[in-house]
Amino acid sequence: MTGLDIPLTPVRFLERAAEVMPDKVAIIDGQRRWTYREFAESAQTLAKALRASGVSDGERVAYVATNSAELLIAHFAVPLARGVLVAINTRLSPAEISYICEHSGAGMLCGDLDLLQPLRMSGAEFPTIGEWIELPTVDGHITGDGDFTGYDELLARSQGDDLRWEVDDETRTLAINYTSGTTGRPKGVMYSHRGAYLNALGGIHHSSFDQATTYLWTLPMFHCNGWCTTWAVVAALGTQVCYRAVRAETMWSLIDEHQISHLNGAPTILTTLVNAEQAHPLATPLTISNGGAPPSPTIIAAVRALGASIVHIYGLTETYGPYSVCEPKPEWNELDVDDHARLTARQGVGMITAERLRVVRAELSPEGELIDVATDGVEMGEIVMRGNTVMKGYYRDEDATRKATVGGWFHSGDLGVMHDDGYVQLLDRAKDVVISGGENISTIEVEQALLSHPAILEVAVVGVPDDKWGERPKAFVVTTGKLDIDEAEAIAHVKAQIASYKAPRAVEFVADLPKTSTGKIRKSELREVEWSSQPTMING
Amino acid sequence: MTGLDIPLTPVRFLERAAEVMPDKVAIIDGQRRWTYREFAESAQTLAKALRASGVSDGERVAYVATNSAELLIAHFAVPLARGVLVAINTRLSPAEISYICEHSGAGMLCGDLDLLQPLRMSGAEFPTIGEWIELPTVDGHITGDGDFTGYDELLARSQGDDLRWEVDDETRTLAINYTSGTTGRPKGVMYSHRGAYLNALGGIHHSSFDQATTYLWTLPMFHCNGWCTTWAVVAALGTQVCYRAVRAETMWSLIDEHQISHLNGAPTILTTLVNAEQAHPLATPLTISNGGAPPSPTIIAAVRALGASIVHIYGLTETYGPYSVCEPKPEWNELDVDDHARLTARQGVGMITAERLRVVRAELSPEGELIDVATDGVEMGEIVMRGNTVMKGYYRDEDATRKATVGGWFHSGDLGVMHDDGYVQLLDRAKDVVISGGENISTIEVEQALLSHPAILEVAVVGVPDDKWGERPKAFVVTTGKLDIDEAEAIAHVKAQIASYKAPRAVEFVADLPKTSTGKIRKSELREVEWSSQPTMING
Repeated sequence: MTGLDIPLTPVRFLERAAEVMPDKVAIIDGQRRWTYREFAESAQTLAKALRASGVSDGERVAYVATNSAELLIAHFAVPLARGVLVAINTRLSPAEISYICEHSGAGMLCGDLDLLQPLRMSGAEFPTIGEWIELPTVDGHITGDGDFTGYDELLARSQGDDLRWEVDDETRTLAINYTSGTTGRPKGVMYSHRGAYLNALGGIHHSSFDQATTYLWTLPMFHCNGWCTTWAVVAALGTQVCYRAVRAETMWSLIDEHQISHLNGAPTILTTLVNAEQAHPLATPLTISNGGAPPSPTIIAAVRALGASIVHIYGLTETYGPYSVCEPKPEWNELDVDDHARLTARQGVGMITAERLRVVRAELSPEGELIDVATDGVEMGEIVMRGNTVMKGYYRDEDATRKATVGGWFHSGDLGVMHDDGYVQLLDRAKDVVISGGENISTIEVEQALLSHPAILEVAVVGVPDDKWGERPKAFVVTTGKLDIDEAEAIAHVKAQIASYKAPRAVEFVADLPKTSTGKIRKSELREVEWSSQPTMING
Repeated sequence: MTGLDIPLTPVRFLERAAEVMPDKVAIIDGQRRWTYREFAESAQTLAKALRASGVSDGERVAYVATNSAELLIAHFAVPLARGVLVAINTRLSPAEISYICEHSGAGMLCGDLDLLQPLRMSGAEFPTIGEWIELPTVDGHITGDGDFTGYDELLARSQGDDLRWEVDDETRTLAINYTSGTTGRPKGVMYSHRGAYLNALGGIHHSSFDQATTYLWTLPMFHCNGWCTTWAVVAALGTQVCYRAVRAETMWSLIDEHQISHLNGAPTILTTLVNAEQAHPLATPLTISNGGAPPSPTIIAAVRALGASIVHIYGLTETYGPYSVCEPKPEWNELDVDDHARLTARQGVGMITAERLRVVRAELSPEGELIDVATDGVEMGEIVMRGNTVMKGYYRDEDATRKATVGGWFHSGDLGVMHDDGYVQLLDRAKDVVISGGENISTIEVEQALLSHPAILEVAVVGVPDDKWGERPKAFVVTTGKLDIDEAEAIAHVKAQIASYKAPRAVEFVADLPKTSTGKIRKSELREVEWSSQPTMING
């Protein structure tokens, strides 16, 4: 830092927005509206109320809340109060939420009433939580239930001069986001002001956010702080439309009513959008940033037919959400639909504000350095990342931080290949890979092959026990219901595209797939059922 | 910085571009082309050649060059070699260039042959310059003149492994740009890697640079490193079209040939564009970032009629070029042409990556803090700026740095007012203000009033001696030649718009106005003529 330098912080974006466009509508939540002036004032009021309630520098403030204006405001108010935001996945069990509150040491828990009540009734312990705050409903209603402090009561404590929209050190922790913890306890991923600022700027560029942006909150804000979009749309002076429970009919009515230009989400959001009864050609161009898993060619084609375009991004909680983008190349437009979909389904290259996306071997060089796999699209390795948009570390877990950052790069646990054009393709989560007769089979590769069949809507492939090969792939399939398909045809369809040994041994047609709160398929649940008759599970 | 953080540097943008779009055309210079792969290779070759030629960490490398591919490559290669780029205004006198070379302590001077030869012949001394490098012509030709080392000969020294696209400390000096020095010696403004990186990202957002961008170099690259656009277009994966000598006919042929989407410059560029014989409606939407002075309503209307849009930015050498932008508001579109032009001609608000734009009083508060003027559009004060996109300081001039940064903000020497919508309007350079009967008269205000007359193309107002009032404004006017106008009508036109005492005492019709190399009008020259009969000049 030199004499006139200022530490980077995304809270500054709201100060600027309120100065430049005070009267513009910044937040829409049901019938309620906040202009940028009101947004900034609300953030100041909440920040001062938090300080008055005893929140001190670096103290954690937890939220268990749907995508409300109040949670969005907290993304600015908590760091403005020099606190640390812990936005918790609302669909976790009371025991998990209890663990996160205690591990983070949060002193206050703010939440929707229907989320707080089950926590209180569960018997789970919340030893660090000194105060429970009931947030308003979408209509602004607060019951004032005896167990909880009303949000209005909290805000009434606000006093004194406005706080400064700045931070004394840009490496300070702004937020802690807990991993989904499918293997072991959730880990608390620390985000710095610097990292969030830079990832927000990267998101603005790759999503083309500007003043005209009207962003619909289909992605949970508790998921990597909404991929830093909470801050990015404010920086771009756009409008954010809160959305508390994603359902097909309301999604379409919000898109139409507010002329939505952008939304983010996992492929399940695309599926919901496309298969809704209300689906119709879009009046306003819509850009969808898709993450979590690559969209299938069928879905890509259906989304495009509506007039929407897809930006395919990849990242993890540890990378502030998006780290890489499948930067589209003009020449791809000349390809047929399948080839185009195949290329855009890749995880791509580091974003403008990120470093390289690498795929490395398991073993280090004699000098202790990471070794890149061949750029042949074949050799599988682990995807690693580093730079300003990779976490500071795991909160109160130096050991896990050290293990995850061997060689100075963050190890994702994702397996992929590097293509000859420098684009990375994710093949599988390390824990999902099927090891069959000593060969690695990427479940994603099998899934993509199945999804290219027009009768198939969604699919999950997991390894199931096999006496001869150890494991074999099995597919769980949801059909579109518009075309017929049976097990034999599905298997033949896969074999026509990829090596026969990768084809599923069995195909089970199901009505639904089990999913996490962020739309990822819970393969562990599918595996558990299949392996329950076996003495031990191999891949947990 | 935390464990996995990487220091910010704009040279990283080229590494990324070469990885993501190696085969895309990045630079066009005459008939020569560089893909991003070739651009990155050229930067590596030059950087290694500089190291092999003895350029050490932090050493200055000077360029006196037109807008060539070689100067653009140097913007990456010199910092890659851990050197500091000093891009010198090509239109300065040999004595001035000699001063800059000696003050910066540059050990090498690279330049176009027709710029180097007059320097050698001038007799000016270049004691620190150990080697003179002749850059290729637009055709790639190098004479190999005995006095100079050919660029090819320099490049041939390149050896060893590629250098890393990174910097060990983001606050290191990347470039030194010398002020035009209308008052006293030019000062060397130090840019850091951090500041250039952030200003480039800000430019990408406000100019909407993306993959489809084709940028024409009408702005000299030696002017604030081309407002950091040298780095920004690479970050956005766009194409840069070099342009060595701006002339109306070639400007239009380049715009048509390359479907130019963006160009930058002072209002003189707009005038050249609009008044060219070749002017015609644009086939590709063109965005022009205009700085240096606000464009007149007449010019704005003419530019729009061609199908181009204007982004009005403001800044100084000390702020990496653009610091503020007149962020357009949707509601302005409902205004008539004159009101729209009046609002967009303002200097606006800090960019997305900048801090606030303030206007402050001359005196500090009792606590030594800067005091903002009233937000009434009337009270005049000095425009001040701070943050990451304000210089590190003046090279080898701590005294000037201290004076320029009183109260922790950079003092621009520009006078302005703050409007009630939070937008700043520049009224005048402090040294240009006319003080008439104790009243400050903004020469820009008088100029804008004159420019609203359809017969007037360009104008400069300066203070001239007056026995009664001390000074009075005088206008030098270039007409469009398409309509008649005389002195009396011009003066009456001003009086119809602003206070009578601000109207010029005299109007002189001229064929041309004297200008700096960056298109700014040399008011000092006009003043000198007028004051030459007087014993002393008041405003120098």
